[in-house]
Amino acid sequence: MIWCRFQTGENSAQPKTSFGIVEERRVTEVWGNPLEDYAVSNHIYSLDEVKLLAPIRPGMLYAAGPNYRGHVEGMAARRGAPPTYPDRPSPNYRSVHAIIGTEENVVVPGESSGTVQPEGQLAVVIGRKARNVPVSEAIDHVFGYTIGNDISQRPWQQADRTMFRGKNCDTWKPMGPWIVTDLDPKGFRIIVRHNGQVWEDFSSADQIWDTATWISELSKYATLHPGDVLWMGTEGADGDMVPGDTIEVEISGIGTLRNYVVAEE
Amino acid sequence: MIWCRFQTGENSAQPKTSFGIVEERRVTEVWGNPLEDYAVSNHIYSLDEVKLLAPIRPGMLYAAGPNYRGHVEGMAARRGAPPTYPDRPSPNYRSVHAIIGTEENVVVPGESSGTVQPEGQLAVVIGRKARNVPVSEAIDHVFGYTIGNDISQRPWQQADRTMFRGKNCDTWKPMGPWIVTDLDPKGFRIIVRHNGQVWEDFSSADQIWDTATWISELSKYATLHPGDVLWMGTEGADGDMVPGDTIEVEISGIGTLRNYVVAEE
Repeated sequence: MIWCRFQTGENSAQPKTSFGIVEERRVTEVWGNPLEDYAVSNHIYSLDEVKLLAPIRPGMLYAAGPNYRGHVEGMAARRGAPPTYPDRPSPNYRSVHAIIGTEENVVVPGESSGTVQPEGQLAVVIGRKARNVPVSEAIDHVFGYTIGNDISQRPWQQADRTMFRGKNCDTWKPMGPWIVTDLDPKGFRIIVRHNGQVWEDFSSADQIWDTATWISELSKYATLHPGDVLWMGTEGADGDMVPGDTIEVEISGIGTLRNYVVAEE
Repeated sequence: MIWCRFQTGENSAQPKTSFGIVEERRVTEVWGNPLEDYAVSNHIYSLDEVKLLAPIRPGMLYAAGPNYRGHVEGMAARRGAPPTYPDRPSPNYRSVHAIIGTEENVVVPGESSGTVQPEGQLAVVIGRKARNVPVSEAIDHVFGYTIGNDISQRPWQQADRTMFRGKNCDTWKPMGPWIVTDLDPKGFRIIVRHNGQVWEDFSSADQIWDTATWISELSKYATLHPGDVLWMGTEGADGDMVPGDTIEVEISGIGTLRNYVVAEE
């Protein structure tokens, strides 16, 4: 099943935001919320006539950070240092206010050096409260999967005490295009394309810790709530993007998240 | 003006949560939200008959981290290392799901070493969107002030790559008892009491960067939204708390946030 969040009447005085079910190229509006109560309405739109929004507004947006060996090695090479692999799943947080949807602009603020870097990531949407959940039951707490692009600026990321400027400027957390349920998180193929050229092509099978392990481990300390989202890390260490560039993240069985880099006006 | 969030009918089948205005020992219920639209109702309660909740559910909870020289020095001494002062305001995030109100329990999970440490902090509640705001106009974007206790576990904080376990276990972010508007953030006296004994007694005047500077600096990169909360850092490096302890943070002109340390069952 494919769930989206969308807006109609974008240019009207009162645009309307709803959740919807995507089939073929049609969106069926639902009333309510797929994580709580909802009803399927008789309002059906063509995908072409709605504006897709980020498919969920998370309570918390968790980021796995280094979760692929190649990313640890690529980032270490960028710093000119030997790689240090993480010894346990230790997530960071991202700003929920920085989330945008597919086809929206990633804005590089005037303060910055002018380049940003993409990180294509599997995004896991929690569907049921999880606290002290064993690995074997962890996936039962997942609602579905979408795509994230953890836009970063490496000089700030490396210079600052925290990831605030380096990863959380307004618009730097594209997520979408929609959430797909009933998939196996172990076999996703993740492709990052910069202006149409492949920059990364990797598998979720190469994660240091898999989705079930992350959920189980986090739930020893903190309750994961419905609507929370966990970004599962990226592979490699990609090059620089500048205003005018297009960046796409495609995940097998989910779709493509496409965004455009622009300079702040 | 004093704003609270409170629950009535705590033991009934349908407890009700509302915002309220506190005067003397009375709470006047309001309908709606003080940050958007609200109406003052004719429902008036005694403070003693309602349960106070954390006074706001933030979109994002920012933590200034090291913002007092004595905290930098105390934490360095704890690690046996020389102090390193921050070179710019670089906030971290805390879990909004970990927030509890005054008089609630701080639960130490079974996994931990059994002790936790308090950090009494001034909490600044944003009232109006702030983006690229100069220092001179920053305070116009504040709704009011409350009190936070940034409960930490030092061994996890020092061992882990992120603050996830070290600061964000369920219940580790007490905030309250209410929000007070129209105060000057420069002259607060902040007192931390452990089982009635004073552990810290300091002034917000000793912050490395003040509230206006933090708001202005953050707003260069990210929009601060109404309801976001910024915790302004603590002084010193306090001792260990164990189950059975009572911890209080008092701020002049605001009130007292009181919580109880218990072990996970």
